[in-house]
Amino acid sequence: MKILVTNDDGIYADGIYALATALAKVGEVTVVAPDTQRSAVGHAITLTDPLRVGKARRNKKFFGYATSGTPADCVKLAIKSIMKGKPDLVVSGINLGANSGMNILYSGTVSGATEGALLGIPSFAISLDTFVKPDFSAAAEFAARLAQALKKNRLPKGTLLNVNVPAVTRARLKGVKFTSQSHELFKDWFQKRTDPHGQTYYWMTGKFRTSSAEPGSDVEAIDKGHISITPIQFDLTDYKFLSELETWDI
Amino acid sequence: MKILVTNDDGIYADGIYALATALAKVGEVTVVAPDTQRSAVGHAITLTDPLRVGKARRNKKFFGYATSGTPADCVKLAIKSIMKGKPDLVVSGINLGANSGMNILYSGTVSGATEGALLGIPSFAISLDTFVKPDFSAAAEFAARLAQALKKNRLPKGTLLNVNVPAVTRARLKGVKFTSQSHELFKDWFQKRTDPHGQTYYWMTGKFRTSSAEPGSDVEAIDKGHISITPIQFDLTDYKFLSELETWDI
Repeated sequence: MKILVTNDDGIYADGIYALATALAKVGEVTVVAPDTQRSAVGHAITLTDPLRVGKARRNKKFFGYATSGTPADCVKLAIKSIMKGKPDLVVSGINLGANSGMNILYSGTVSGATEGALLGIPSFAISLDTFVKPDFSAAAEFAARLAQALKKNRLPKGTLLNVNVPAVTRARLKGVKFTSQSHELFKDWFQKRTDPHGQTYYWMTGKFRTSSAEPGSDVEAIDKGHISITPIQFDLTDYKFLSELETWDI
Repeated sequence: MKILVTNDDGIYADGIYALATALAKVGEVTVVAPDTQRSAVGHAITLTDPLRVGKARRNKKFFGYATSGTPADCVKLAIKSIMKGKPDLVVSGINLGANSGMNILYSGTVSGATEGALLGIPSFAISLDTFVKPDFSAAAEFAARLAQALKKNRLPKGTLLNVNVPAVTRARLKGVKFTSQSHELFKDWFQKRTDPHGQTYYWMTGKFRTSSAEPGSDVEAIDKGHISITPIQFDLTDYKFLSELETWDI
């Protein structure tokens, strides 16, 4: 099994190292990831600049290819120019911080797996629900288990799995829940500040409300200590509304 | 009617000028847009840098607010920090080039309207299907008509309209089709080149195949000379597959 690994925290992040190491036990891993952090890039691709690719070493050994692009760029570039032959699986992560609810629209991590799915390759994104003192071991282990499971189970064309692992001790980690994407999103706002030169600037900041998450959703599952797996797809058509729209007089 | 206008081609693009001018006949327009081109940024937001806002003039008059952010940043910033009170409508465009099929995932134009919809405001994105010698007048006129129609018709919460206008003469422009999002995507690849310093770089390039577009889809409608309107929403859950997934043994 040939596995392509990417992320959005950058090739030198701890999460991708834990992930690539765990997946090496399941298949032949190629890492192609951004050279620095590219968080909240959404499903961006780089059209107006050339992309650069370098070799990255970790622990004194060749680890993977570092690119100047986004996670989606990395997956395109890996499949079309770097790897010999298509991978059998694309895995993106392990992200520092959950990717759940409507916020997955902003997620570079999910976007890496999306690009894999668009190119017809089984793909999943995996994130750990914490920003502090992360222990990636349980999530990395689960990624390897899921990669194994994908050897014998098929995903529909264009559908990927979005996995979130709660940051709890192994003893407290509950089993897998197959979930829907919550409709919750960050409640965000801007802090208006003045720089040392007297100029105004704005920082975005926000809070995630988990209190009102829908039963059966990713947000609820993670909150209750379950590993959440949401199958996601990219036909965004609101089919239910499409027929009502036909009655509009425009 | 208070209308927020944004785009991804930048505040000095011709498309946003035509759009804002046409919409000024329907309501009170506020323009908040990127200070330069931000194409293919997907639904990116800026977390790691502060955002700057300046005033932009066009034709010797104040035209709008130019920001250092993405289209999604612009809409957030407009609603939360720049405008007095929420807009009644968010319109993003007029984009140079269609936004249809799976490629809407990469679209900064659609992303501006997405942010509006996520914030609970009726929103639409509008694009003109050409990259050369654009005449935005028919598209701008249609945007004003659609804005009027949105005064009396309601969109479901979280659903926006993605509008594409073919670049044909008025005489050849056919009526509106309500469409689904095609599953077609760019067939892209990379050109590998060497820079003047002997270093390798990659440019992405691609082609859109319209030949095999699904009947009733956006790509087909535009190709046949119709104005295409696709209602899109952002619950990405693959509900059909979710129940099958329950049978997986992971």
